[in-house]
Amino acid sequence: MDIFTAIEKRYSHKEKFLPTAVPLADLEKIAAAGLAAPSGTNSGCVKLIILQNREEIQPLCDITPTDALLTAPAVIVVFTEKSKQNWKCNFELEDYAAATAQMLLAATALGYSSLWQDSPFFVADKQRAACELLNVPLDYHLRVVLPIGLPDGEGSRREKLPFSARVSYGKFGK
Amino acid sequence: MDIFTAIEKRYSHKEKFLPTAVPLADLEKIAAAGLAAPSGTNSGCVKLIILQNREEIQPLCDITPTDALLTAPAVIVVFTEKSKQNWKCNFELEDYAAATAQMLLAATALGYSSLWQDSPFFVADKQRAACELLNVPLDYHLRVVLPIGLPDGEGSRREKLPFSARVSYGKFGK
Repeated sequence: MDIFTAIEKRYSHKEKFLPTAVPLADLEKIAAAGLAAPSGTNSGCVKLIILQNREEIQPLCDITPTDALLTAPAVIVVFTEKSKQNWKCNFELEDYAAATAQMLLAATALGYSSLWQDSPFFVADKQRAACELLNVPLDYHLRVVLPIGLPDGEGSRREKLPFSARVSYGKFGK
Repeated sequence: MDIFTAIEKRYSHKEKFLPTAVPLADLEKIAAAGLAAPSGTNSGCVKLIILQNREEIQPLCDITPTDALLTAPAVIVVFTEKSKQNWKCNFELEDYAAATAQMLLAATALGYSSLWQDSPFFVADKQRAACELLNVPLDYHLRVVLPIGLPDGEGSRREKLPFSARVSYGKFGK
């Protein structure tokens, strides 16, 4: 799919998914798209776990039972490695965000819907429970889970601020 | 350009650019690609300034004279609005990173090279000087500048960690 079409079509699918399985080859293509994203000091601090079926996903729903997670046929979980900090700089947030943006576009290009679902894991108990569930070492942060699949109906889309309110020329506000 | 081709071709061009001008329509297409990125709580905190010629770009080089900035025929400067924080959460870093990733892909798809150049603006004096130069209000952070243009020769590319070192299946490390 043309990149500008994928950028236009991408949206946050917070609703239910169809049970149709997502082939592993597609999940790996999405994962590779994320890992190809820019990485501060090229640290490669972003790590992924692919969950390929409901058996693997269901325990996550006990931690955060959202419509999307309760029905998604596949999930990619995104972590950052805390110790991967070069030059005394920490680019964990930028790195995972860039990787996630590229994965959401890749999923869209392959015909799937997805969602940047991070807020449940801001809660320390849920962060800890999810990391324990997935055997994630203590020097990692769980940043976001991406439920991936065919949408069960059209998802809602929120309007963004218009271009003219966000872009200036030469100087701010011009 | 197909999105997976753009993802594969994108790289950090730290070297010189050719002086060939970048048409405003292309810069606006790149900007729009950034503004279409996911935004936490849909705050739209990312704002952009387009610099279209050397006259507009040169003063930035007095602050940070990198090869890329000294030769780029166009630049997009990326800010985040500090006050744009809904639900007591702050997604400035995630938002600008996602927008920047999408702009770099869009630039690549249109045949240009670019660079995520943020480190000079971690220095408080340079941050302040650049914001003053561009008339940016105090409630904004300058996050990154993207020099954009045709590369003058092939840029260097750093190898990333292999897929197998970054992706697990079902559980971490599997």
